[in-house]
Amino acid sequence: MPGRTKIAMLIMDGLGGLPREPGGPTELEDARTPHLDALAERSELGLTLPVAPGITPGSGPGHLAIFGYDPLRYVIGRGALEALGVDFELGPSDLAARGNFCSVDTAGSLTDRRAGRIPTDLNRELCGLLQTIRVEGAEFFVKTVKEHRFAFVARAPGLEDALTETDPQRTGVPVPLVRALQPGSEKAAQVVNQFIDGARLKLAGRTPANMILLRGFAASPVLPTFMDRYALHAAAIAVRGMYRGVARLVGMQVLALQGEALSDEFAALETHWGEFDFFYLHVKQTDTAGEQGDFAGKVQAIEAVDAQLPRLLALDPDVVIVGGDHSSPAVLQAHSWHPVPLLVYSRYTRSGGPAEFGERACARGSLGILPATDVMPLALAHAGRLAKFGA
Amino acid sequence: MPGRTKIAMLIMDGLGGLPREPGGPTELEDARTPHLDALAERSELGLTLPVAPGITPGSGPGHLAIFGYDPLRYVIGRGALEALGVDFELGPSDLAARGNFCSVDTAGSLTDRRAGRIPTDLNRELCGLLQTIRVEGAEFFVKTVKEHRFAFVARAPGLEDALTETDPQRTGVPVPLVRALQPGSEKAAQVVNQFIDGARLKLAGRTPANMILLRGFAASPVLPTFMDRYALHAAAIAVRGMYRGVARLVGMQVLALQGEALSDEFAALETHWGEFDFFYLHVKQTDTAGEQGDFAGKVQAIEAVDAQLPRLLALDPDVVIVGGDHSSPAVLQAHSWHPVPLLVYSRYTRSGGPAEFGERACARGSLGILPATDVMPLALAHAGRLAKFGA
Repeated sequence: MPGRTKIAMLIMDGLGGLPREPGGPTELEDARTPHLDALAERSELGLTLPVAPGITPGSGPGHLAIFGYDPLRYVIGRGALEALGVDFELGPSDLAARGNFCSVDTAGSLTDRRAGRIPTDLNRELCGLLQTIRVEGAEFFVKTVKEHRFAFVARAPGLEDALTETDPQRTGVPVPLVRALQPGSEKAAQVVNQFIDGARLKLAGRTPANMILLRGFAASPVLPTFMDRYALHAAAIAVRGMYRGVARLVGMQVLALQGEALSDEFAALETHWGEFDFFYLHVKQTDTAGEQGDFAGKVQAIEAVDAQLPRLLALDPDVVIVGGDHSSPAVLQAHSWHPVPLLVYSRYTRSGGPAEFGERACARGSLGILPATDVMPLALAHAGRLAKFGA
Repeated sequence: MPGRTKIAMLIMDGLGGLPREPGGPTELEDARTPHLDALAERSELGLTLPVAPGITPGSGPGHLAIFGYDPLRYVIGRGALEALGVDFELGPSDLAARGNFCSVDTAGSLTDRRAGRIPTDLNRELCGLLQTIRVEGAEFFVKTVKEHRFAFVARAPGLEDALTETDPQRTGVPVPLVRALQPGSEKAAQVVNQFIDGARLKLAGRTPANMILLRGFAASPVLPTFMDRYALHAAAIAVRGMYRGVARLVGMQVLALQGEALSDEFAALETHWGEFDFFYLHVKQTDTAGEQGDFAGKVQAIEAVDAQLPRLLALDPDVVIVGGDHSSPAVLQAHSWHPVPLLVYSRYTRSGGPAEFGERACARGSLGILPATDVMPLALAHAGRLAKFGA
């Protein structure tokens, strides 16, 4: 069986929800999901805890957990997340940070931490300018995020990330240089400060965006790969850079898409089905609607996934995981700590529960409430990919 | 109460099962078990995880876990399991291994790793021959398992088990001697190699079984006893050597049986009921049928246990545990990772659930999904044998 079986992991970002009124349906329960419901009847259900009870995960920890990596052990720093978010391929000698364009007065005092939220187009032009800064022995990458925000990456051997931030978090004071918090980060401090000096010169006169702030320094996290840990040739299907980036960090091959629609993601699944053992397919719309407080929008996003599900099932996967990286209830307009619905399908499940995929059905499910990091071992077991322990 | 209460643990080997078709009954659900069902109504139900989610346990780890010993901490090596399997009483200065009779040509090259699977009777004769090998300062025990397989035990002080195996895993090469992998195992290497030299001489001309291979070297595991850990006088009732052996390792007294039938096991329980605080009764037939893919046979084996259950209940035990060491679904014809049905009866349970003992009833049970190592503390508590923690 090993090497022959295929696992599909369908992650609806922020899947878990809450009722709008006591006893009412959640987004997932409200959604008309005939295909998910029918699959639930042939599957086992449960609820995943991404980090720990009561803990609301960010997208990084939520994804690491569902991929089987303890999110308390493996941490992706904020700078690295920002770089992943703009689809930057972080390498092992990269030091990333979140950047802001800001305004300083002639004395060098900070007057606006966000440079009046300059238009994204101007941001692009200024990033081009910053990209021309040269420091011997180092390379820099500056990529626009949005408005005043950009991702910053310095590449050179031996750049450690124990650095102070340059954002004083208030105006009326000078913008400090970075300082090394540990001896091993001295080189990184030098390289980054030379870049900041360069930025000051390049941006002189470009008021309001005449200076930069850098924070959230993070070396590129080193994670064992899906091949190392699970002996899986894994592929990732995701539209947003951050999810593509986290998948890349765990050694998945990120598949090219024809477009950014859900149907394009499922098309990529079909196109590449023969080439990999494991597929991670990420759906962003559920989380976006949840964070916007758009209950109906989240319901629709779930229904849209349900409509595509037959395309996945037609490929006859050996194991199907349907779940989320965390909850994003519309009533909270944010990520939340609530455990996340989980469905595990294979031929080897104790199936026959209700034909219903929803928070309450999952709370009564035979998988119970389990750490999200248990999902991958379960998936591997159902795929016949784990050896017996002991004789 | 302590010293007065009695716990009976009824282990159906490989108890957990799977439906043959989606939504269908498992073996346990299919079985007509009026006595277990009635007991379930007066008990609490749950599912045990022997090792970890997704992990399929061997019989050794499965039993250690249900006895309350962390199977990742306490490991019984393969050689030791083989010796236990032929009912050999492993002592603290024993080094065990799995043996094969094999064939070598005149140049000493391996030509058949299994000596053409010689008949078990010939194996017995040859083991008698090997038993006559003498090495100063050491004792040897050679016991037939089946066909070409035998259990080997060397007894001498200071035999450590960090040894290479002598099975090259392919033919056409000489049979190597063992080598010590750590300085502490040098003595064991010498003793074992002298035995191997002796075997070569004794078996000369006994083609095809003219040489031996040894692998899976394992010193006798040292485990705290049931008396040490639980202050329990414990007895074991089991037919197969391996289960008798593991029970002996944790300090249980292994009871003599009048015969090998299930009714003989329950008779031993009745005979010795006054003498012990704890009884482990092992049923093998459930696992045998499961591993043979015999769904109906496993159903029958469970029904046979149910028919005997009133004999146990008539003894008025304070606590009854009914469970398994792992799952062995007939559809998989093997051990599996699925959690195992568990029933805990005492006068102090929150009883009143459905009168049904089966995988889905247990998945909805009030004990939830719990590590198998939690069962013994629960049993002790229900028996009034644990003190309060803290004031």
